[in-house]
Amino acid sequence: MEFSYASKLKCIKCGAEYPLEYILVCRKCNNLVEFEYDLKAVAALDFPAIPPRDGIWRFHPVLPIQSPDNAISLGEGNTPLIHCPRYAKELGLENLRVKYEGGNPTGTFKDRSSATAIGAAKQFGFATTAVVTTGNAGASIATYAARAGIRSVVFCYSKAAPSKLYHLEACATELVVFEGGYDEVAVAVQKHLDRLKIFDSDGRRSPYKHEGKKTLGYEVFLQLGRKVPDYILIPVSLGEMMVATWRAFREMKEMGWCDRLPKLIACQSSAANPVTRAFDEKKGIVPQQVGYTIAEGVAVGNPGLKGDRALEAVRATDGMAVSVEDDEIVDAMRKLAHAEGIWSGPTGAITMAALTKLVAMKKIDPAASIVSVVSETGLKGDYPPFPAEAIVLDPEKIQRILEK
Amino acid sequence: MEFSYASKLKCIKCGAEYPLEYILVCRKCNNLVEFEYDLKAVAALDFPAIPPRDGIWRFHPVLPIQSPDNAISLGEGNTPLIHCPRYAKELGLENLRVKYEGGNPTGTFKDRSSATAIGAAKQFGFATTAVVTTGNAGASIATYAARAGIRSVVFCYSKAAPSKLYHLEACATELVVFEGGYDEVAVAVQKHLDRLKIFDSDGRRSPYKHEGKKTLGYEVFLQLGRKVPDYILIPVSLGEMMVATWRAFREMKEMGWCDRLPKLIACQSSAANPVTRAFDEKKGIVPQQVGYTIAEGVAVGNPGLKGDRALEAVRATDGMAVSVEDDEIVDAMRKLAHAEGIWSGPTGAITMAALTKLVAMKKIDPAASIVSVVSETGLKGDYPPFPAEAIVLDPEKIQRILEK
Repeated sequence: MEFSYASKLKCIKCGAEYPLEYILVCRKCNNLVEFEYDLKAVAALDFPAIPPRDGIWRFHPVLPIQSPDNAISLGEGNTPLIHCPRYAKELGLENLRVKYEGGNPTGTFKDRSSATAIGAAKQFGFATTAVVTTGNAGASIATYAARAGIRSVVFCYSKAAPSKLYHLEACATELVVFEGGYDEVAVAVQKHLDRLKIFDSDGRRSPYKHEGKKTLGYEVFLQLGRKVPDYILIPVSLGEMMVATWRAFREMKEMGWCDRLPKLIACQSSAANPVTRAFDEKKGIVPQQVGYTIAEGVAVGNPGLKGDRALEAVRATDGMAVSVEDDEIVDAMRKLAHAEGIWSGPTGAITMAALTKLVAMKKIDPAASIVSVVSETGLKGDYPPFPAEAIVLDPEKIQRILEK
Repeated sequence: MEFSYASKLKCIKCGAEYPLEYILVCRKCNNLVEFEYDLKAVAALDFPAIPPRDGIWRFHPVLPIQSPDNAISLGEGNTPLIHCPRYAKELGLENLRVKYEGGNPTGTFKDRSSATAIGAAKQFGFATTAVVTTGNAGASIATYAARAGIRSVVFCYSKAAPSKLYHLEACATELVVFEGGYDEVAVAVQKHLDRLKIFDSDGRRSPYKHEGKKTLGYEVFLQLGRKVPDYILIPVSLGEMMVATWRAFREMKEMGWCDRLPKLIACQSSAANPVTRAFDEKKGIVPQQVGYTIAEGVAVGNPGLKGDRALEAVRATDGMAVSVEDDEIVDAMRKLAHAEGIWSGPTGAITMAALTKLVAMKKIDPAASIVSVVSETGLKGDYPPFPAEAIVLDPEKIQRILEK
């Protein structure tokens, strides 16, 4: 059994093919490249019945890393799929599950893509990687780089939550906290990377990044007892998770594991909703100026090539795209915590808010099986509403509180 | 196959036996009671070869919850055991692994005990539970209570980190933030619980709490390929994890899974080290006034009955007890993040600091197999040192940083 059954890279537009080298975009048309696998051979394996490895690496035949030596791991993946009967009942639904990604090593689903990205950096012999971040992606890349013994240079936006900056300070080899525009720094950083032989850990182009996120789709299918849900709700910023989930189910269908795809629902903030707008207007994506949203992980106005691909995934699966307001997100965070004990950050809870909205619009069959991807823990930030003022207790007050 | 093979409760001192009721301490001598299992029957099972359930409930035959309906779960347990070659090399060790508990639903190993405690609350028909907390324990209990549909009343110390208070505000049915002494509030609360039929989620006495933590020992044994490590380092506050780990390996030995126990090492802060002092002085535990420590999870001066039992575990396994300073803890947090990408809070990193100290004292054989329990994520608080000041970047500065 091979470790990886990746056979080549292929441009999603012009079809140009490439060997398994460090390639980020098509050299002919500058479009996305994606991995092709020998899925016939994978389908013939007893896979993943008895997992030879843990977490995402259980799926090594359909991941692009070619040797177990470069399967960098901190126990990412294998996250719970949690049945949510109380939340479902409030919405009048029958069959709702949350895929909770907060238990990953750095508390978000980015660890799945960091594991394969840094695995590739190691595979291709890079000594250094760089990334520009608003917080979560940088912490995850720095963490996996540390694990792999690779130098990391992380440029982080100064408005990131303090707990994210402390985390970065501890994990990154070099942390640069900067004031001002994210986009300009990202462009300026990228210009130097090839010349300096620095691995590009940005998510906009690299096929090595979203490939790791594909494992979430495989896990959902297996956790449902080898069944395809009717809907999967996914937070969309650059569109990586959407692209990856689509890939996962197409691969499984090609291998004969299933005979249909789930309908994929793109969930965005009203302040940053280029995919939703394009979907509603039946057009292509038009980059937009981003407004403020509490869901900082989806504050992307120009998702680039993967955004286009994410829109294609929504349309191809007969899915939907929906955007929600901050107050709907905060409401969903609190409802999910109270009803099920699941504590999500705003970016993670955006799918729950979107579900509430779609149910109100009668766009979801109440009997459908629904999986909502909650992409992050709530532990990384300070979210409203603020707890009550501290009080001085006395025995009588305590008794009154308990007798209520 | 039964769900639980618990047969009775038994006092650890006078040996009095009780049926499987809601009992917290021995009715005769006021000492701890612990569960007895029909281990012969369990040993005859094909257990846990093919896990019928996930996480800690994989070990249901040796847990006290009698029906799967009360196996409350959010995906706790099944945490990674991470090989740490770089950290080991720095210390001159050959075989070091971290059992990283930060990926649990609320970011700490308390979720293991909350699952069984709240499972018991549901089993015995309680509608409400109460707990007094400095943060982590309360968030975990409130989370599992929400999951079980049980009301929670949480009294939290006002100096808890903001991210913990926000989490509590979202999960607890009723949150009371109080100023002043923890011990007095705990005593005053406990007085009312039996009369008001409120389930006591405090960890000092209940056998239902530490029983869930036992699963960590089972997991370590299986993750090592059914091997017993030479040492396990454990942070000790009330002593629950220590008591539970001792129980786990004694049960496995009785079932014939292994023929020896690991040496258990109790790790404490110098500001709160009653177990270490008793161990060094070869005496019993003397309660002490607690000083300040960054490791707030172990800031306990009077660990009570479970502390006595933890000390017994250390002595019975030929283990050790050691206490460390705050600067050693911060140093270990940063080393672990840089060397392996593992981000722990101070309470979690206390075991890594203790290991460094024991190696310096030449009390650990460099060839020994060592498991260090890192009990919590670092994402829950703001830890020093502070990141650098934010700067305004220009293209030349970016080039200089990348070319370094």
